[in-house]
Amino acid sequence: MDPKIFEGIKQIEKELGTLSSAEKILLATDGSVTTILDVLKGHVHIRTLIQEFQKADKEAASLLDIEVGDTINYRVVVIEGQTPLIYAISMIPVERLDNDFKEDLIRADIPIGRILRKHNIESRREIKSVSLEKPDPEMVEIFKTDTPMLKRTYNIIHKDQVLVWLMETFPHSLFKD
Amino acid sequence: MDPKIFEGIKQIEKELGTLSSAEKILLATDGSVTTILDVLKGHVHIRTLIQEFQKADKEAASLLDIEVGDTINYRVVVIEGQTPLIYAISMIPVERLDNDFKEDLIRADIPIGRILRKHNIESRREIKSVSLEKPDPEMVEIFKTDTPMLKRTYNIIHKDQVLVWLMETFPHSLFKD
Repeated sequence: MDPKIFEGIKQIEKELGTLSSAEKILLATDGSVTTILDVLKGHVHIRTLIQEFQKADKEAASLLDIEVGDTINYRVVVIEGQTPLIYAISMIPVERLDNDFKEDLIRADIPIGRILRKHNIESRREIKSVSLEKPDPEMVEIFKTDTPMLKRTYNIIHKDQVLVWLMETFPHSLFKD
Repeated sequence: MDPKIFEGIKQIEKELGTLSSAEKILLATDGSVTTILDVLKGHVHIRTLIQEFQKADKEAASLLDIEVGDTINYRVVVIEGQTPLIYAISMIPVERLDNDFKEDLIRADIPIGRILRKHNIESRREIKSVSLEKPDPEMVEIFKTDTPMLKRTYNIIHKDQVLVWLMETFPHSLFKD
């Protein structure tokens, strides 16, 4: 396992005590998070809060390895079963998409893991950070709790380029075993 | 989630009662199993029971989509932490390997998930079956228990071809949350 993940989880457990198996796996896995949620909570779906094309600012350009001003697809969603499970932000450089993939993405209602599988896309996931945060008011409103949020960022790499940058966060307490 | 996985797990739960989160994730994930075991059990390693080149028989040829008689790398390992965790069989068509990858594989002591990551290999995993089996004497000997075994088979696909066929099995009882 990547030492970054190992250290991140160790730090979090220092503050919160032992995390559940599901929490640790959701922070560390390089597999589809949708699949894991499906198997834990029944078939999940996404509620899209924002889906729009944006011009990449300096930070986005750096994260995606593109030029400032290049078009990105910016999406904010909540993955839900019976209740909200994970809040996720994704950024995708539009120039790197082929047309079928782009169409599914703009439909906005399909989780990225399912889109990748539908199109048989070969990729790898590179975890960039694992951390703990205080919930901001939007998170409290969505998850109806003010417990600390577990958070990670990662890239989905395809053809040696960042296809998707992702941030996922969920409240500690949601995935007790 | 693939209906095959969903149905497989439903059947198993009919017989055994509810599976733990970790068990369900280990059966369903399309991510690295090594990473999941690392995060649950501390850094894991493998003990190689068999590693040899074989000529593909009819079954192997069909599973890997190669010709009967083509060379495969056949490997049987136990992934272990403090104790044995997962028994795994893999078959890899040798012609599909590039040289660096082949070298690591023949060293035999590195889990496949770690080899893929080391070489930045983009791939996707296709779960073929999820099932429940009575433990045979070898499993009872390795895991020191005669509880039923959870089992799955899957392919790791790379460049639209089967790079690895895998079978993984572990005793129900090992991954209680």
